Amino acid sequence: MKILLINGPNLNLLGNREPEIYGEKTLSDIEKEVTRLFESHSHELICFQSNYEGAIIDFLHNNLSADYTIINPGGLSHTSVSLRDALVGAAIPFIEVHISNIHAREEFRHQSYLSSIADGIIVGCGVDGYRLAAELILRRLGS
Amino acid sequence: MKILLINGPNLNLLGNREPEIYGEKTLSDIEKEVTRLFESHSHELICFQSNYEGAIIDFLHNNLSADYTIINPGGLSHTSVSLRDALVGAAIPFIEVHISNIHAREEFRHQSYLSSIADGIIVGCGVDGYRLAAELILRRLGS
Amino acid sequence: MKILLINGPNLNLLGNREPEIYGEKTLSDIEKEVTRLFESHSHELICFQSNYEGAIIDFLHNNLSADYTIINPGGLSHTSVSLRDALVGAAIPFIEVHISNIHAREEFRHQSYLSSIADGIIVGCGVDGYRLAAELILRRLGS
Amino acid sequence: MKILLINGPNLNLLGNREPEIYGEKTLSDIEKEVTRLFESHSHELICFQSNYEGAIIDFLHNNLSADYTIINPGGLSHTSVSLRDALVGAAIPFIEVHISNIHAREEFRHQSYLSSIADGIIVGCGVDGYRLAAELILRRLGS
Amino acid sequence: MKILLINGPNLNLLGNREPEIYGEKTLSDIEKEVTRLFESHSHELICFQSNYEGAIIDFLHNNLSADYTIINPGGLSHTSVSLRDALVGAAIPFIEVHISNIHAREEFRHQSYLSSIADGIIVGCGVDGYRLAAELILRRLGS
Amino acid sequence: MKILLINGPNLNLLGNREPEIYGEKTLSDIEKEVTRLFESHSHELICFQSNYEGAIIDFLHNNLSADYTIINPGGLSHTSVSLRDALVGAAIPFIEVHISNIHAREEFRHQSYLSSIADGIIVGCGVDGYRLAAELILRRLGS
Amino acid sequence: MKILLINGPNLNLLGNREPEIYGEKTLSDIEKEVTRLFESHSHELICFQSNYEGAIIDFLHNNLSADYTIINPGGLSHTSVSLRDALVGAAIPFIEVHISNIHAREEFRHQSYLSSIADGIIVGCGVDGYRLAAELILRRLGS
Amino acid sequence: MKILLINGPNLNLLGNREPEIYGEKTLSDIEKEVTRLFESHSHELICFQSNYEGAIIDFLHNNLSADYTIINPGGLSHTSVSLRDALVGAAIPFIEVHISNIHAREEFRHQSYLSSIADGIIVGCGVDGYRLAAELILRRLGS
Amino acid sequence: MKILLINGPNLNLLGNREPEIYGEKTLSDIEKEVTRLFESHSHELICFQSNYEGAIIDFLHNNLSADYTIINPGGLSHTSVSLRDALVGAAIPFIEVHISNIHAREEFRHQSYLSSIADGIIVGCGVDGYRLAAELILRRLGS
Amino acid sequence: MKILLINGPNLNLLGNREPEIYGEKTLSDIEKEVTRLFESHSHELICFQSNYEGAIIDFLHNNLSADYTIINPGGLSHTSVSLRDALVGAAIPFIEVHISNIHAREEFRHQSYLSSIADGIIVGCGVDGYRLAAELILRRLGS
Amino acid sequence: MKILLINGPNLNLLGNREPEIYGEKTLSDIEKEVTRLFESHSHELICFQSNYEGAIIDFLHNNLSADYTIINPGGLSHTSVSLRDALVGAAIPFIEVHISNIHAREEFRHQSYLSSIADGIIVGCGVDGYRLAAELILRRLGS
Amino acid sequence: MKILLINGPNLNLLGNREPEIYGEKTLSDIEKEVTRLFESHSHELICFQSNYEGAIIDFLHNNLSADYTIINPGGLSHTSVSLRDALVGAAIPFIEVHISNIHAREEFRHQSYLSSIADGIIVGCGVDGYRLAAELILRRLGS
Repeated sequence: MKILLINGPNLNLLGNREPEIYGEKTLSDIEKEVTRLFESHSHELICFQSNYEGAIIDFLHNNLSADYTIINPGGLSHTSVSLRDALVGAAIPFIEVHISNIHAREEFRHQSYLSSIADGIIVGCGVDGYRLAAELILRRLGS
Repeated sequence: MKILLINGPNLNLLGNREPEIYGEKTLSDIEKEVTRLFESHSHELICFQSNYEGAIIDFLHNNLSADYTIINPGGLSHTSVSLRDALVGAAIPFIEVHISNIHAREEFRHQSYLSSIADGIIVGCGVDGYRLAAELILRRLGS
Repeated sequence: MKILLINGPNLNLLGNREPEIYGEKTLSDIEKEVTRLFESHSHELICFQSNYEGAIIDFLHNNLSADYTIINPGGLSHTSVSLRDALVGAAIPFIEVHISNIHAREEFRHQSYLSSIADGIIVGCGVDGYRLAAELILRRLGS
Repeated sequence: MKILLINGPNLNLLGNREPEIYGEKTLSDIEKEVTRLFESHSHELICFQSNYEGAIIDFLHNNLSADYTIINPGGLSHTSVSLRDALVGAAIPFIEVHISNIHAREEFRHQSYLSSIADGIIVGCGVDGYRLAAELILRRLGS
Repeated sequence: MKILLINGPNLNLLGNREPEIYGEKTLSDIEKEVTRLFESHSHELICFQSNYEGAIIDFLHNNLSADYTIINPGGLSHTSVSLRDALVGAAIPFIEVHISNIHAREEFRHQSYLSSIADGIIVGCGVDGYRLAAELILRRLGS
Repeated sequence: MKILLINGPNLNLLGNREPEIYGEKTLSDIEKEVTRLFESHSHELICFQSNYEGAIIDFLHNNLSADYTIINPGGLSHTSVSLRDALVGAAIPFIEVHISNIHAREEFRHQSYLSSIADGIIVGCGVDGYRLAAELILRRLGS
Repeated sequence: MKILLINGPNLNLLGNREPEIYGEKTLSDIEKEVTRLFESHSHELICFQSNYEGAIIDFLHNNLSADYTIINPGGLSHTSVSLRDALVGAAIPFIEVHISNIHAREEFRHQSYLSSIADGIIVGCGVDGYRLAAELILRRLGS
Repeated sequence: MKILLINGPNLNLLGNREPEIYGEKTLSDIEKEVTRLFESHSHELICFQSNYEGAIIDFLHNNLSADYTIINPGGLSHTSVSLRDALVGAAIPFIEVHISNIHAREEFRHQSYLSSIADGIIVGCGVDGYRLAAELILRRLGS
Repeated sequence: MKILLINGPNLNLLGNREPEIYGEKTLSDIEKEVTRLFESHSHELICFQSNYEGAIIDFLHNNLSADYTIINPGGLSHTSVSLRDALVGAAIPFIEVHISNIHAREEFRHQSYLSSIADGIIVGCGVDGYRLAAELILRRLGS
Repeated sequence: MKILLINGPNLNLLGNREPEIYGEKTLSDIEKEVTRLFESHSHELICFQSNYEGAIIDFLHNNLSADYTIINPGGLSHTSVSLRDALVGAAIPFIEVHISNIHAREEFRHQSYLSSIADGIIVGCGVDGYRLAAELILRRLGS
Repeated sequence: MKILLINGPNLNLLGNREPEIYGEKTLSDIEKEVTRLFESHSHELICFQSNYEGAIIDFLHNNLSADYTIINPGGLSHTSVSLRDALVGAAIPFIEVHISNIHAREEFRHQSYLSSIADGIIVGCGVDGYRLAAELILRRLGS
Repeated sequence: MKILLINGPNLNLLGNREPEIYGEKTLSDIEKEVTRLFESHSHELICFQSNYEGAIIDFLHNNLSADYTIINPGGLSHTSVSLRDALVGAAIPFIEVHISNIHAREEFRHQSYLSSIADGIIVGCGVDGYRLAAELILRRLGS
């Protein structure tokens, strides 16, 4: 099966900036770890990161055959109706991941346009959140 | 005269996804139909679709000599001040089109940053909305 | 088929008052134009205007066999739950028309009790809005 | 004693439209049933229905000698300060009845201008609500 | 010159009901007093009261040649956009009068759809408010 | 059939405290009266009162076989999502009763977490509200 | 009897600044006109203007024996709880006057801390508002 | 180490009621599964469920020596400041679990008093959420 | 006379947890100190603490003969209408005490359901607040 | 040590006006009583009252060496950011006193700009509040 | 030309209090620096500071001939409509300066009554903000 | 040192469109002027403009070694959490510049996601705002 791992704006900085909030693993480390996990169950993982809302939407449109998505939308969570529309349009079930606890930060981070249509939401578990999402998908896919 | 037909994020999926909401015509079908209508009155129609807010703004800047615009901003309707600014800056009169009835959907779709500066707003008329917009422009241009 | 054209409070003044906002056509001019359009497709159009909420509701109750309605509810758009209930109760699909751009006017005009149950909404297209609504209905009725 | 039974806009459609919400009894059936109940206790019941806010206010002014009122204000519940003023001015104690559960419907139906001055409020009990109101009045009148 | 004196819903009860709030003069007393005042300056006063929003709008439409209006809109103040539209459409300057102090009563009485377009607003001065309005108009008309 | 009569916090004080609001009947009087009514139709009534949210939830869980519930949730109406969840979970249709008119009291009493899922709501009818609820249930059960 | 005429911040500029809003009469002109009116009925008028909230409160405390007050609180209307407290503490009935139509200006001018305790409110009648207030007081004092 | 697994009101019904929302596993099934997982890493798990806010607070006070907590607060999430205070007072890091997607349900479920102080939040992952929480804790405890 | 000292949820932890906010005295220390003070004036003090809303309400019902209450409702301050109702029902005057300054903490702690019916409110004075409350009561009881 | 006792606008009327709310003691009585208390512990008390926000700020600036402040800001509580700034700037710890229960009065009195930075807040304890504040300060100063 | 430099409440403390927020320069230092700058361009600078709203308004009224104003309104920014009115009345263009970043502080500091009528706003640039404002004015005056 | 000058959407139109709001200088003019200023102090200025949110974020990520940033985010100010995150992540101090007075325009322009983390904010000073920002940076860098 085909799984997508999508990271939104600024997540390319992971491990380099604000380690006290986001930890020390780089995005590449995370992508490798999650890839290994899916490959060990014979699933394909396609990783994508962009600082462009439009590029993420294009990526989704180009992968409509995917079976599941893990997405950390970064700042777009709170501002992008278009990303929500793309996810609804793509009709791929997805798990929303936030590394930090968005409910313990500024008020405008408390709501996400994606949450009400997500298949699961994992918040504030650090970069372990990606792995938890992957394990949940494996369980749901019956792997 | 020169008319623009602009479609925002996810409208490239028209006809392929969620046909119960958006109908079965593809964006290409619609563009052809509206082009024929304008050409039959000897006007030029330039069509553009993008999932990038920035690309739509660039397109507007590159077509400042246009006489009228039909725009379905998609999800950007509810979130993009920059698109509003581009339309004000371009000073091209425009008709805002929404295929579905945004007032019958989620609360966050009830307001659009473009509406208060639009020359006309056509909502919930399905893909016929584009044609209605075109007819209105023809009438206004005295065609 | 039987179509209704309903105009709410103050629209009897059309063409006489505030022409810079509402144009110079009278309500009678508009009713004639829309009647001609429907008759040319062998449909019947029944026109009605009243300044009484109650009279419009009575009119709807007396025409439950109608197939489609074009309604410009005027100021009742923003204040009448009873009119909404009458339209729901009558179960006749309707197009809501506003001559001026209500989103460019006072805040209290930005919402309409009818919009979420309308079959289409045409705003700020001037008195051409009625004609657009008529053309949409013709198209939907397959005329 | 003299009791009023007042029904507001659209309630004349009872039994004919939307039976899954409002049931199958007509307004006439209900008026007959409530009349019989009051007459069996030697009270007079005067029934009135109108789609005009003004007519209901006139009716109240014309029956200032009444002892109790049962009123289902329909859509006016949520929009009519004038009806509230009429009830306060008439100083007749009244029971407010809503056939459907207004708290399970759209947000704008959750508040009623009449409730805070009502002598009792019966909501969502279907057309049985009228009978309950009648029984309550009989009990209060010591019948 | 021609002056209108318009009273909205429930004001026909003046002097009969809730005298502790509205005083003991009847509407007829007030109309006579204000008529005398205008006639003594050779102006014509046309008085009108109705419990129907629609009737008041009709009355305004039928008197578009009037020079000034005194209006106590009663409960319609807080709920009628259509009355506001009628006053704007009629383009007759008007003084808004409220007998009681609406700012000392329920929250929903604190705003009036008419106030922002009124030529003057007199609140809580009892039935003397009508006379003050009349004196103001006389002064403005240079009588 | 089995009917539950549940009273929430402070309703054990009925008849002893604030009689000008809640009347002079004790809770025991009411329970007896409603029991007699149901028994006369060969239904069983189980009465329960507690000042503990948890105890009321436990009681509902222990009586999942009941056919109908009358509940006056007292102050929990406005604060308890858990009680709502218990009622939804139990899936027993229920009538919500409030002795006093909650819409005429403090703002925070105007909404109830239970109302939108209730089968009927009886407010401000005094302790007669319980009897009305019982009669409604009997009618619905076809007794 | 002793009447107070109090003007708040910036009203000393009357007649000199923004005449299109506030007219051309100076505060001194107004004070003279109102003084003449009261003196002609043998009442004493004491005039006071200050740009200091504290000075106006002191003035009220120093004139607790006054019988009536006309006050135009200027910008303090919208911001001064202390002025409200002073008026309540002084227990002198007062008429609140606003020269311009505060409801047609910025949102923050739409409410006044004084209005709910005023004996009458005269808004948007220009500087004639002072005279109307004076006439009302004379009428109430039975002059 | 000592871990707590706390479930709030109504979660004792798990597996018996509303399986389409909450799944078919019973609470006992879940507790056994999570116990096995922790025991296999030589940690102790203490399970507790109650419908009483007070009992859960007592339980926390009685287990102040615990190292980590998994808590599904049920309806208390949205209403209990006291539970939040207990968790802060106990100073045991905790993972908040919601079986259903609270952001896709009623508005009042969108905020939780616990989230801003949680160490991680897992929402809408079904009963798998408990297991994910357990795995996260194991990872954090370095097991 | 009989005085009650009631402490709500989590206040049993006083002196043990978060001493930087709540100080180092235990609840037992405080109860002893306040008891001594009242006993020295020959009044009886009954102390009660519970983490259950229901238990506190029961305690109040069981002590309706008390003359005064000191209550620190803890987290229930912000969430319990039932506790408010119990205090109103009991009709015992009470002083509300908060050890920490609730206005300097989270927004949801800024309002208390008890404050508007309290006889006095002492906030942010640390555990000295209890003693101040006791002294106030002694003064009011004329001790 | 040096203590300040500051009273804001209108508190000079204490004992003379509205005794049912504020009691019968004059401000002078209170100042004497509190002075005696502090002097008996060899502290200096400086009393100040003004109806001018500016004067109170000046007073604070002139007494930056004070050790503690008792302040009843009167109406300025709800409107003066400048007074808050002065207290923060002066960095003198202060107790905020309100004689009446501001939470039982108008909504705009429910919040105070000073509370979140106060060292203690005593509300609704009548003029005894000043004495309680003094006793608290004595206790904190270790007197 | 004549320039005004106005500082509101508490700014006389500059350099003495809270240097970590406001820096170490005194108001006198700043006034000297700005004076030198304007004098070097042959403009006159008049400096004024007061803790009284009224005094600042008086100062503006006494300097209506000024050409430009630099104003740091301090806490009055957020609370004084009268100061706004004075600036509008004086019709002197002004630059609003805030030393600290008001958008990074308490919510109530985020809006200023002056900003929407200011000729420029300089926020959070420390005491350098005054100099920037002066340079802007010089540039605008063509110096 | 290295300074960034970033301009957001539509600012490439500067000098060409809406000169009455934005002035007649082109963006190129401004960039040259600011470059000259920094170069004269031996600092490097890198200029960047884009209509793409993503491109601006990329630009920031590619210049993490910069020492200071001047940014006019255009319409993104009010809608882009991702840009805020990029600025926080980059940890480069920045001055936010708005050419027009955003507080005198539409409500949605009154707040900016960047302001609370900016090192200084310059609003409504026209294109001079850029120069002021540059001078401030020079001063802070000790040039």
